[in-house]
Amino acid sequence: MNKSRVEALSDGVIAIAITIMVLELRTPNSASLDAVLNLAPQFLSYLLSFIYVGIYWLNHHHLLNMAEQVDRSVLLANLNLLFWLSLIPFVTSWIAGHHRDTLPVALYGVVLLMCSVSFLWLKLTLRDAEKDHPLAAMAIGSSRKNKYSIFLYALAIALSYWAPLGASFFYVILALLWFIPDRHFSQSY
Amino acid sequence: MNKSRVEALSDGVIAIAITIMVLELRTPNSASLDAVLNLAPQFLSYLLSFIYVGIYWLNHHHLLNMAEQVDRSVLLANLNLLFWLSLIPFVTSWIAGHHRDTLPVALYGVVLLMCSVSFLWLKLTLRDAEKDHPLAAMAIGSSRKNKYSIFLYALAIALSYWAPLGASFFYVILALLWFIPDRHFSQSY
Amino acid sequence: MNKSRVEALSDGVIAIAITIMVLELRTPNSASLDAVLNLAPQFLSYLLSFIYVGIYWLNHHHLLNMAEQVDRSVLLANLNLLFWLSLIPFVTSWIAGHHRDTLPVALYGVVLLMCSVSFLWLKLTLRDAEKDHPLAAMAIGSSRKNKYSIFLYALAIALSYWAPLGASFFYVILALLWFIPDRHFSQSY
Amino acid sequence: MNKSRVEALSDGVIAIAITIMVLELRTPNSASLDAVLNLAPQFLSYLLSFIYVGIYWLNHHHLLNMAEQVDRSVLLANLNLLFWLSLIPFVTSWIAGHHRDTLPVALYGVVLLMCSVSFLWLKLTLRDAEKDHPLAAMAIGSSRKNKYSIFLYALAIALSYWAPLGASFFYVILALLWFIPDRHFSQSY
Repeated sequence: MNKSRVEALSDGVIAIAITIMVLELRTPNSASLDAVLNLAPQFLSYLLSFIYVGIYWLNHHHLLNMAEQVDRSVLLANLNLLFWLSLIPFVTSWIAGHHRDTLPVALYGVVLLMCSVSFLWLKLTLRDAEKDHPLAAMAIGSSRKNKYSIFLYALAIALSYWAPLGASFFYVILALLWFIPDRHFSQSY
Repeated sequence: MNKSRVEALSDGVIAIAITIMVLELRTPNSASLDAVLNLAPQFLSYLLSFIYVGIYWLNHHHLLNMAEQVDRSVLLANLNLLFWLSLIPFVTSWIAGHHRDTLPVALYGVVLLMCSVSFLWLKLTLRDAEKDHPLAAMAIGSSRKNKYSIFLYALAIALSYWAPLGASFFYVILALLWFIPDRHFSQSY
Repeated sequence: MNKSRVEALSDGVIAIAITIMVLELRTPNSASLDAVLNLAPQFLSYLLSFIYVGIYWLNHHHLLNMAEQVDRSVLLANLNLLFWLSLIPFVTSWIAGHHRDTLPVALYGVVLLMCSVSFLWLKLTLRDAEKDHPLAAMAIGSSRKNKYSIFLYALAIALSYWAPLGASFFYVILALLWFIPDRHFSQSY
Repeated sequence: MNKSRVEALSDGVIAIAITIMVLELRTPNSASLDAVLNLAPQFLSYLLSFIYVGIYWLNHHHLLNMAEQVDRSVLLANLNLLFWLSLIPFVTSWIAGHHRDTLPVALYGVVLLMCSVSFLWLKLTLRDAEKDHPLAAMAIGSSRKNKYSIFLYALAIALSYWAPLGASFFYVILALLWFIPDRHFSQSY
C-alpha cells in the first residue's frame, strides 16, 4: 500500500478544518469599531486553533515523510487522528464566546488531549509497521515531547475547573512551546 | 487514463463530507452541562457516519490500489458512489434529532444501501476493466461481504417501520462488523 | 510547468462545489412524509447540478490527460472555468424553489452557458499550447459538441422567458445527451 | 523533505476559500429582478476576491515550481501565508455590504497587505533554502513587484480613511495590474 492517499485525505481534512473555522468569524452587521472589537475572542480562538492544526500538519508531514510503508492499522490510527482533528472547529467556536467558563475550556482541552493521544498512537503504529526498516523506525524518533504534551493537557483540563481563564492561557503557552527550537527535543520533533 | 485524479476527487469529496458533518454539531449558546448532553445525539450520529465514511475510504483506497487502469465506465461508477456518499451528511443531520422516527431512520438506511450497491457496481466495473490483467482482477477479490451488507441494510430499512430504534442500533452493529478481522472474509475485504 | 497542481486545484473546487450543494438540502424539522416530499425540488436540482459538475470533471480529466504541458494562458483559462463552476451551487439553490420563474431558470442557463464557453476557451488555449505536439493537439479533438451545447444553452435561456418549466426540462435533456455514446461525436467528446 | 504536501495543503485551502466565498451569495427569496440586482455588491466583491486568490495561486504555483527543496522555515512561512489567505472570505463578505465604510474597506486592505507581506516572506525563505542551488534561487527572481504592492496596499488603507469608495476602486486597479504583462517585471512575476 502506498501512503499518498493517506496524505491526501489528511491534507483535505486539515485544509477544510482550517477554512471552516473562519466561518465562525461572522460578518458584523455594522461597520463600527465596536463590531470589530467584538470579534476579538473569535479571532483569537481561531488564531490559537490555526496554530494547533498547523503544528499537527507539520508533525504529520514529518512523520509520514519518514515512513516507508503503511498498513491497515496505520490507516485506522490515521482516521482516528482525523476524527479528533475534525472536532477542533466545534470546540473552537464554543470556547470563542466562553473562554471564562469551565465546560467549554475543559472540552477544548479534551479534544487537544485526544489529538495528542491519537498522534502518539499513529506514531507507535507507524514505528511498528517499520520493524523491518530500523533506520525509518529511528527517524520517526522518540515520543517524549508527545507524552509530556498529553500530561500538560490533562493538567490544563484539571485547572479549568478552578480557573478557566488560566487554562485558556495554558493552551496558548503549550502552542508556543512547539515553536521554540529545543536541542534536547530536536530529534523527537 | 491514469487513476490519480479519480483518487483525488474521491479523497476531496470524502474529506469534505467528514468535515461538513461536524458543522451539524452547533455551538451551544450556554456553557452548562445540559448544553453538552443535548448534543449527544448529534455527536453519536456524527461518530457513526464518520465510521461509515472512514470504512468506505479504506475500501475505496484498497480497491483502487489494486486497479491497473480505469476507463470511462469506472469513472461513471465512481461518480455515482460519490453522489450517494455526498448524501450521508444530510441523512446524518436528520437522524440526529429523529433516531426514533421511521422515515429518517429508513432514509439513513436507504443511503447506506445505495452506497453499498454503488460500491459493488464500482467493484464489478473495475474487475471488468481488468479483464486483461487476471492477477489484478483476482486481487480485487470477491464481493461476498458487499452483497451480505446490501441484504442487511434492506433488512434494517424494513425493521425501521416497526422499530426505528432497533434499526438505528442495527446500523451501529453493521459498522462494527467491518472492524472484526474475519479469516473467511479477509480476501473479500 | 507541470500540470499536477492545475488538476489538484480543479479537483478541489469541483469536490467542494459538489459537497456544498448538499448543504441546501436542509434537514426537515419533522419526520413526516410531507417533509421528505417537500425536499423533492431541492433534491432534483442537486441531482441535475451533480450530473453537470460530474460531466465537467470527466471532460476536464480527459482534456488535461491529453495535454503535455501547460502555460500561463492555460492556467488563466482554467481559473476562469473554475470561477463559473463555483457559481453552480448558487444558481442550483435558487432554481430549487423557483423552477417555474423566468429569472432563476434563465440565470441557471447563463451559468451553464458560461461554463461551456469557458471550457471551449480552455480547450482552444490548450490546443494552442500544444502546437509543437501535433499528436497531443489532435487527441484534444474537435470542439463541435461543445459549440452545439453553447447554442442549445442560449436557446434554453431564450425559452425561459416564455416557458420557464420548459427551459428547466431542456437542461435535463441536455445533461442526459452527454451520456449517450455518439459515434459521430465520439472524437469530440 | 519533498514539497508535494505543501502544494496539496495550499491547493486545498485555496480551493475551499474560493468555494466558501460563494456561500455569501445568499439565495434570494423572490425571483424578481430586484433580488438579482441587490446581489450585485456581493457578486462584485466575490469576483474581486476570486481574482486576488487566483493570482496568489498562480504565483504560489510558480514559486514552488522553481523550488528544489523545502525546509521547516519554508513550511512555517507557507502556513503563515495560508492563515492570511484564509481570512479573505471574511473580509470579502464584510466589504460586500460596506464598500463605502472606512473600517471594512481598510480591513480588506490590511488582509491583502498581510498576504503580500507573507508571500514576500515565503519567497525570501525559499531563496534562502536554495542557497546551494544558485540557478533555482535566480529562477525565484526578484521581489520588486511584491514590494511595490505592499506599498500600494498601505496607500489604499490610508486612503480608506478619507475616501473608502476610492480605496475600493484602488483594490480593483491593483488586481488588474497583475494581468498586464510587463517586460520590466516579467522576471519578477
